[in-house]
Amino acid sequence: MRKLYVIGIGAGDPDQVTVQAIKAMRQVNVFFVIGKGAEKQELVDVRATILAEHATQPHTIVEITDPPRDRSVPGRGADAAYQGAVADWHEARAELLERAFTETDGVGGILVWGDPSLYDSTLRIVERVLQRARIRFDYEVIPGITSVQALAAAHRMVLHEIGEPLHITTGRKLRDDGLAPGQSTLVMLDADCSFTQIPGDDIHIWWGAYLGMPDELIIEGPLRAVEDEIVRRRAALRAVKGWIMDTYLLRRGL
Amino acid sequence: MRKLYVIGIGAGDPDQVTVQAIKAMRQVNVFFVIGKGAEKQELVDVRATILAEHATQPHTIVEITDPPRDRSVPGRGADAAYQGAVADWHEARAELLERAFTETDGVGGILVWGDPSLYDSTLRIVERVLQRARIRFDYEVIPGITSVQALAAAHRMVLHEIGEPLHITTGRKLRDDGLAPGQSTLVMLDADCSFTQIPGDDIHIWWGAYLGMPDELIIEGPLRAVEDEIVRRRAALRAVKGWIMDTYLLRRGL
Repeated sequence: MRKLYVIGIGAGDPDQVTVQAIKAMRQVNVFFVIGKGAEKQELVDVRATILAEHATQPHTIVEITDPPRDRSVPGRGADAAYQGAVADWHEARAELLERAFTETDGVGGILVWGDPSLYDSTLRIVERVLQRARIRFDYEVIPGITSVQALAAAHRMVLHEIGEPLHITTGRKLRDDGLAPGQSTLVMLDADCSFTQIPGDDIHIWWGAYLGMPDELIIEGPLRAVEDEIVRRRAALRAVKGWIMDTYLLRRGL
Repeated sequence: MRKLYVIGIGAGDPDQVTVQAIKAMRQVNVFFVIGKGAEKQELVDVRATILAEHATQPHTIVEITDPPRDRSVPGRGADAAYQGAVADWHEARAELLERAFTETDGVGGILVWGDPSLYDSTLRIVERVLQRARIRFDYEVIPGITSVQALAAAHRMVLHEIGEPLHITTGRKLRDDGLAPGQSTLVMLDADCSFTQIPGDDIHIWWGAYLGMPDELIIEGPLRAVEDEIVRRRAALRAVKGWIMDTYLLRRGL
């Protein structure tokens, strides 16, 4: 039976890769890179660095061009439509991965930014390939450092108050659901600076962009006092570099 | 200025350590081990393996005996008292770490199970040492793989539904707050099998113990169908090994 490794490689610092991930990478004959065309050169370079340093055995890299995703679906209050659009896109990706895996030999590998368990579609796509049942394989998941931990490390903080919960959500959900009292809320996938839309004078923010990378920037303070600076610096960095990845924690009552 | 590294070393698999953690460990002259007396031999052995393999420079290990913690404080509905008891215990630990750091030389290091940002007291203690202002130092946090990611990898699962939130909480809080619909809830620090106290016939559980270790055990299924098995096997394993570390994810509507 063929084998596929789905390997978390950390949030952007090549040294965030684990020994377990390195050992898995060294088993791989063919790495599948999904959606490389849309990816930023800096991230491509980090992945190339990781492979060059650790995947010392002979291996090939197969790029799978990302299928288009229907982004016309509105965000607010359209969860079923949104999830349907995402599901279609997963199916299209599954077909492409199936074809690529069928056309190659040996152990497969997919490197995933952060960890495959958090806001990443790779495992949903791999499960779809298995459900399609045209190719049989076993697969194994190697956990990786996420931007959640990278944000906390950069701020040298515990993500929750003593014995209290941590809520991990998206910008879309933060706008829909608001900020619950008594919990720390970590926001990912927010291209819209949704924190500016959350009312309240007692909110603190810990924000970070390009975590673990040379351009890492962190800002922390009362939300109403620092939000304009975050919006401004985020826009400026994005304009200069052409892309941005950021995440942040919000907490009420400080 | 002296330096202290607070290093996440993963959830129990020695290979979950990152390259960044290895590089940090190699800078350290003295490792502080807090509360080793209370720790299980198997975990002590994993940490010894990690240090033997990666901390190849000369270094010393200083054990800091854990101060007693007031566990008489009741759980339910007594959050202020609970947090007060924890705060007193943090202060006692801070005094011990301050003394140990003062009495030694060079770069310090503290290895933390999982990641220092999640249900771990090390960073709160280090901040207290700095606030006491009797010793000055800089410190850096190295992120680590948590049992959250280890659980997800073992079950080869994404922790949340598409675009939906992930709520990370404790057994105590799960009993107090119940299980919110529409979100995936990951429970840590639950010695009481609190999942048995959550009503509902539409809940699914993904459970794991000793994640990443040789005795790793995972069970998954409808909560009402598998809860008795989890309780039984958890008790049996705990009786045989003398300790258990487990975590689980709950989700409604499956």
